[in-house]
Amino acid sequence: MTFHTFSEAHLRNFTESVFTKMGCPPADARLAADVLLKSDLRGIDSHGVARLSGYIRLWEKKRINATPNVNIVHDTPTTATVDGDGGLGLVVAPFAMKVAIEKAKVYGSGWVAVKNSNHFGIAGYHALMAVEQDMIGISMTNASPLVAPTYASERLLGTNPMCYAFPAGKYPPVIVDMATSAAANGKLEIAQRANLPIPNGWAQDKNGNSSTDPNELKAGGSLLPLGSDKDHGSHKGYGLSAVVDILSAVLSGANYGPWVPPFVAFLEPPTDPVGAGIGHFFGAMRIDGFRPATEFKSHLDNWIERFKNAKTTDPDKNVVIPGEPEFAFEQERKKNGIPLIDAVVTDLNDLALKLGIAKLY
Amino acid sequence: MTFHTFSEAHLRNFTESVFTKMGCPPADARLAADVLLKSDLRGIDSHGVARLSGYIRLWEKKRINATPNVNIVHDTPTTATVDGDGGLGLVVAPFAMKVAIEKAKVYGSGWVAVKNSNHFGIAGYHALMAVEQDMIGISMTNASPLVAPTYASERLLGTNPMCYAFPAGKYPPVIVDMATSAAANGKLEIAQRANLPIPNGWAQDKNGNSSTDPNELKAGGSLLPLGSDKDHGSHKGYGLSAVVDILSAVLSGANYGPWVPPFVAFLEPPTDPVGAGIGHFFGAMRIDGFRPATEFKSHLDNWIERFKNAKTTDPDKNVVIPGEPEFAFEQERKKNGIPLIDAVVTDLNDLALKLGIAKLY
Repeated sequence: MTFHTFSEAHLRNFTESVFTKMGCPPADARLAADVLLKSDLRGIDSHGVARLSGYIRLWEKKRINATPNVNIVHDTPTTATVDGDGGLGLVVAPFAMKVAIEKAKVYGSGWVAVKNSNHFGIAGYHALMAVEQDMIGISMTNASPLVAPTYASERLLGTNPMCYAFPAGKYPPVIVDMATSAAANGKLEIAQRANLPIPNGWAQDKNGNSSTDPNELKAGGSLLPLGSDKDHGSHKGYGLSAVVDILSAVLSGANYGPWVPPFVAFLEPPTDPVGAGIGHFFGAMRIDGFRPATEFKSHLDNWIERFKNAKTTDPDKNVVIPGEPEFAFEQERKKNGIPLIDAVVTDLNDLALKLGIAKLY
Repeated sequence: MTFHTFSEAHLRNFTESVFTKMGCPPADARLAADVLLKSDLRGIDSHGVARLSGYIRLWEKKRINATPNVNIVHDTPTTATVDGDGGLGLVVAPFAMKVAIEKAKVYGSGWVAVKNSNHFGIAGYHALMAVEQDMIGISMTNASPLVAPTYASERLLGTNPMCYAFPAGKYPPVIVDMATSAAANGKLEIAQRANLPIPNGWAQDKNGNSSTDPNELKAGGSLLPLGSDKDHGSHKGYGLSAVVDILSAVLSGANYGPWVPPFVAFLEPPTDPVGAGIGHFFGAMRIDGFRPATEFKSHLDNWIERFKNAKTTDPDKNVVIPGEPEFAFEQERKKNGIPLIDAVVTDLNDLALKLGIAKLY
């Protein structure tokens, strides 16, 4: 695999141009680009600019609305439901998180369920918006069905990520941002491309037998929930995924379970929807709604130090603080640029040609 | 193993008498008994009356305050911190959940962090209090360190359970109530008593090698997080456990990580506490803060039906709706009584003798 490295600014301009060509208003194009760039900066390559052409294909199929009227359709002082009007999740999600933050500023906490949206990028982006305000940020989304609940031989849930982010003092924020499946779909795609076996416990074939063949997923198989099998707690991973699905979609009025529309344009959405688009759920809580923020941060620093200094099974490994590797990536890539694999560069240059904008290089 | 079966009313009276002898005011004794009985009724035998003598031993060591002044020490319209004053978690937790529910009634949601508490029984009890009010209930607690984070060879986290409960329409509530470790400690204890091996991935020895010997935990080993190993997402189980620890204790001012005081009286608490007692976290959100409750419930019923009717890997198995088995236990045991194993009956009769109350039988 060969890479070409681009500066953050260059990729950001390119991405903004793509969203502008899609018809997004300037502020939305800027915001959507910021969400994708954050993912690339943080080393989560699967959720960054590599997905640009996917968003465009959905827009071409009129499954993304470039000029949505995103609005609050239901609310109380600390809760709300937002209708994304079929817009980019990259735009709808920050809108909803802002609503949660504004409520939290006044009442201590804010909670927003979202319907009629699309893929929202990395969950961490939205949760971090709250952290910047000395709040705890919570962010989750449902996604197209890929995961079989315990005992099922069909896909009923997405990889449904949940994210919790906490501000620390002298350390980077603690950010737990995780798919509720045993492995993310991106990891299977890497194994498929490299034609390598996957560990037992990531996926099963269409009959529900655990499989090490990454291609089973394309042949009617499923990903497995976190825990992998019943003995190791797959019912817990399934339960967490269910929590994300219910908060994101049953609560908001979006599609849930097997009715969630696919993220890929070549698969059609179900013809019997039970709601609108996909769903998200966001929360913000003021730290000082519980104790002074400086106290919280100094104790979280202490927590972090204790865990970093834990005795380990291998002298070459340390206990990793959630969010720390992504923070290190961000520092490094802001300085040295963002490496993209050739396949992604080619894909983006093809996209540029189609849209009539300057190629990446 | 032989069992003796008791009626709910008989066990309830006995349990209330024990808490009364401990010095709890009548309403507290009644409430604490209700929490323990709920656990036995729901088939979670490890968290019910089997723990009574453990609570008494902690009280004898003056590590539980039978007459606490449980009070709110910090609050905003929708957030609060409660000081449990060293009381029984079985009493402190329902107090805190009530605070969250009252806030939610007025503002849409309520969130309460608790410090200076003790073991709170099953997380589901507290979350269900919100469900009865047509709210979503959230409940979590940290616990004595038994779990090693990914790459660690020491215990830094408890089995830190989290619970989310949702009201349905014609079906029982959906309740995800789970330890964030691969297996609950109770499962290891069963294997220890029966001298049977445990599955790989539940525990590791003191050097961090995965072990099938349930006794390794008593020899300096650790439980493993949900996911079991890095390949299967143990960093996710560790991350979830960290979320519970931070919300329950760093946010409230309780002890966190390895500083959490042990639940067993024969182990002394750390001499360098970083907070007060153990910590909990509770949340309540009005369903109708997002959409009409009848709409939510009818969609949750649809969700439940779709999952119950899923294609399965084995014709004899169905996809289990979280909370459904416990609900079935509750119906059955309310009617036919609660079976206790002989060892528990003997332990409770010894306790009765010590406290000067009537034996179980």
